[in-house]
Amino acid sequence: MTVEPAISRHIVRVGEISIGGPELTVMAGPCAVESEEILYATARHVAAAGARVLRGGAFKPRTSPRDFQGLGLPALKMLRRVADELGLAVVTEALDTRDVDSVAEYSEIIQIGSRNMHNSALLKEAGRTGRPVLLKRGISATLKEWLAASEYVLEAGNPNVILCERGIRTFETATRNTLDLGVVSLLKETSGLPVLVDPSHGTGRRSLVEPMSRAAVAAGADGLIIEVHPEPEKALCDGAQSLTPEGFAHLMEQVARIRSALPAA
Amino acid sequence: MTVEPAISRHIVRVGEISIGGPELTVMAGPCAVESEEILYATARHVAAAGARVLRGGAFKPRTSPRDFQGLGLPALKMLRRVADELGLAVVTEALDTRDVDSVAEYSEIIQIGSRNMHNSALLKEAGRTGRPVLLKRGISATLKEWLAASEYVLEAGNPNVILCERGIRTFETATRNTLDLGVVSLLKETSGLPVLVDPSHGTGRRSLVEPMSRAAVAAGADGLIIEVHPEPEKALCDGAQSLTPEGFAHLMEQVARIRSALPAA
Amino acid sequence: MTVEPAISRHIVRVGEISIGGPELTVMAGPCAVESEEILYATARHVAAAGARVLRGGAFKPRTSPRDFQGLGLPALKMLRRVADELGLAVVTEALDTRDVDSVAEYSEIIQIGSRNMHNSALLKEAGRTGRPVLLKRGISATLKEWLAASEYVLEAGNPNVILCERGIRTFETATRNTLDLGVVSLLKETSGLPVLVDPSHGTGRRSLVEPMSRAAVAAGADGLIIEVHPEPEKALCDGAQSLTPEGFAHLMEQVARIRSALPAA
Amino acid sequence: MTVEPAISRHIVRVGEISIGGPELTVMAGPCAVESEEILYATARHVAAAGARVLRGGAFKPRTSPRDFQGLGLPALKMLRRVADELGLAVVTEALDTRDVDSVAEYSEIIQIGSRNMHNSALLKEAGRTGRPVLLKRGISATLKEWLAASEYVLEAGNPNVILCERGIRTFETATRNTLDLGVVSLLKETSGLPVLVDPSHGTGRRSLVEPMSRAAVAAGADGLIIEVHPEPEKALCDGAQSLTPEGFAHLMEQVARIRSALPAA
Repeated sequence: MTVEPAISRHIVRVGEISIGGPELTVMAGPCAVESEEILYATARHVAAAGARVLRGGAFKPRTSPRDFQGLGLPALKMLRRVADELGLAVVTEALDTRDVDSVAEYSEIIQIGSRNMHNSALLKEAGRTGRPVLLKRGISATLKEWLAASEYVLEAGNPNVILCERGIRTFETATRNTLDLGVVSLLKETSGLPVLVDPSHGTGRRSLVEPMSRAAVAAGADGLIIEVHPEPEKALCDGAQSLTPEGFAHLMEQVARIRSALPAA
Repeated sequence: MTVEPAISRHIVRVGEISIGGPELTVMAGPCAVESEEILYATARHVAAAGARVLRGGAFKPRTSPRDFQGLGLPALKMLRRVADELGLAVVTEALDTRDVDSVAEYSEIIQIGSRNMHNSALLKEAGRTGRPVLLKRGISATLKEWLAASEYVLEAGNPNVILCERGIRTFETATRNTLDLGVVSLLKETSGLPVLVDPSHGTGRRSLVEPMSRAAVAAGADGLIIEVHPEPEKALCDGAQSLTPEGFAHLMEQVARIRSALPAA
Repeated sequence: MTVEPAISRHIVRVGEISIGGPELTVMAGPCAVESEEILYATARHVAAAGARVLRGGAFKPRTSPRDFQGLGLPALKMLRRVADELGLAVVTEALDTRDVDSVAEYSEIIQIGSRNMHNSALLKEAGRTGRPVLLKRGISATLKEWLAASEYVLEAGNPNVILCERGIRTFETATRNTLDLGVVSLLKETSGLPVLVDPSHGTGRRSLVEPMSRAAVAAGADGLIIEVHPEPEKALCDGAQSLTPEGFAHLMEQVARIRSALPAA
Repeated sequence: MTVEPAISRHIVRVGEISIGGPELTVMAGPCAVESEEILYATARHVAAAGARVLRGGAFKPRTSPRDFQGLGLPALKMLRRVADELGLAVVTEALDTRDVDSVAEYSEIIQIGSRNMHNSALLKEAGRTGRPVLLKRGISATLKEWLAASEYVLEAGNPNVILCERGIRTFETATRNTLDLGVVSLLKETSGLPVLVDPSHGTGRRSLVEPMSRAAVAAGADGLIIEVHPEPEKALCDGAQSLTPEGFAHLMEQVARIRSALPAA
């Protein structure tokens, strides 16, 4: 019944990880890198549960200048050391064209966050590095605008774009954002790029991260990016939506079950 | 990990069907009742594939007075005859307080559509009949407003409310509406009422109905309501989002697989 | 510079009041009719300040069944007596097709509220009475849908539709709704119907009602509908957005100054 | 009636221009600098009609990499030469932290566009220059987030922030954006910063620019920023919303009339 779309799927390879292929790719870690100790503790847990990519913010885009802005370069180095020790890849966000080279030096995947989806200067710079780019959807970006943003990377000669739905802004405030899984399915039908889902930002509530991860996988997502913290209530950012290591392990079992219930793509 | 919420689940019983219990409930049929012949052909197919409730509009809420407004009372009678012959229950929409008694006479479940979620007069009247009420979310209703609307039925002494998420209006136009599965999960966590999902209106695109049905079930929905038409391209309304009978049968297999992959509630 | 649009303006006449003509029409009064005494006190003030139409809810559309639902028929009679004594016309809302005849009996103008803009049964019934219909824009209705709703009245043979912009639902919560004056100007350019603006619901904040009334008139609106209460802090509904009688008198002077600064239409 | 708010107004001085004081400040010019000839022709007209600041994009933030991206540094130099010859100040947008110093060298006011309102790196860099910063509201930014963004400039020790409302993204597509004048009034009541309005982007339709400019001034805006092009149909960007020089002169007369109808602040 599923009409086979006439698109060719692009698989983004990061070492031995294939994003957009038959395996689900899960990226996990704390919202921000707070200390090497906490980072290592988190990374060890998420690696054990099956995550292949470590996430963690070194440069944090915050609404207010009085919020924690990230540790910067030292955090990039911690991410690298911890990931190397545990055999993980690193994804972390670049906020400024002047930091793109450092981010590219210390991580395998450069994240362009939601607030910078329209930042064409940053997109071009990230594209230029040749590193895979995880491009989050802008908080009020249409599908069309999101794909147009991806072209800033693609036209820089870099085919390795990974799209990431992270919830859009709507009138509803019961959840932090409204996770738009319909657009995830539509992208899988019409675009060849891998599509990840971020249910942590997409819902803003810890208890919804697992059911929405299941839903994302059932909708056809190629992977997930999840915030995990050993003590969410002490996290410097996004504690309310961070899973505990145990919660993350449970989620991984759940999504594996859903993935195997899907028809072969 | 899933913290067991301190809520008691209300199961809505319609004959031998239990909505909100361990079984997934699927309601299916054409957007509008066009003729008894087409209705019967559709109903036979959806019953064979496992639907338990026949849907079909007798009174159609249309944006323009020049669109097809439904056949009215004759359509109610067709729904009844066809459903009785096939052992199905009927759900159909009431638009006017003056029609509520007729709708209650010919159907087991009274639908209050998205456009009338805020129509308190209609809600009270539907509540008064004692029939289960399928309350669709208003196109821009918050979770809070939707639950407040349900109270118009509950306070009329009728506990049998079934909530139905059908997509909200956002800035995105690539899909007809934005299906808000985050709120479905949140309702399952915080309210005891059964929650259905309508991926036909929620996406407006035939090809997305199946993946979003899988996602809805993975998110914890208690059932689905799906538009099916033997010849969607000839349908008097919503052809672009109607499944063929074959598409519907495929969907039913898919959602059954997802449902069995879920942990026992 | 203003290109003269090729549209013919329809003026709605209510006794000696011409809505949509050179005079600005102001409708004012309490959110709900609470008692004849308060209604009379309010009406006397707004009439003295130049309002020509008395507003006040007899049937109140409320989000929750536990909110004040209005006094019903007795309120209709109070509106009539008070308006007659002061030489005002009455506008009041109908919520149920079964109440339309009573509303038409006691008032000159039938209001269809925002929550019922998509209620086609109610629109047809109001159209049928021949009374002018004040059609508020649905909280998330596009311009196109709003005009389509007006056609339910027009096609019932009733040309006397007055459109009323009252704010739309957006992501912004600093104001109750987002008053969309761009659409008011667009309507004046493309439709012949009179257009009023409701800055009380459009902002939800008393202090913004006067500046947004000025803005509405500057944008080309044909009139305003304003909530006024002698003691806003004691009002049974919408106190936070109700003007005092003094505030209303000040507003009337202001909008008259703006109106005279506009080029002749 | 207007309660005098307990805020102290900050006036931003640019040479002899006082933004946020008793005079209305109008900034005008083409969307993008296309050639010195067109720029000069436009600037001469807008200066004659009363504009004090010349606008024009040197670096253009475009949705697609295939759209015209601006002439860059040569455009900055053209802006400077033309403005100097006509006694105007210059406002132009910076997109990249690496271009901020050039923009500050050639212009009096640095614009941070809607797409970069959340770009904290850029805000800090613009703040650091000490130049007045025209901070446009993000397309889906709440009032709170907009003010938080302004703090990135203020905390860099630069008090000269000018806020600019340019329309928000809503479900309505009849206008390009929804101009939110309610928030303009609310800012004038609660913040001491000057507030400008951009009715060109706020409506996207040439015919609405004049009425919405009147409305903005009536709502209390301190000024306007308007797109003007000698031949809008040939403009490389935003032709549909650009005024002709004659249209702009007419607008200037209109807004002056509205401004004098307002009570003294």
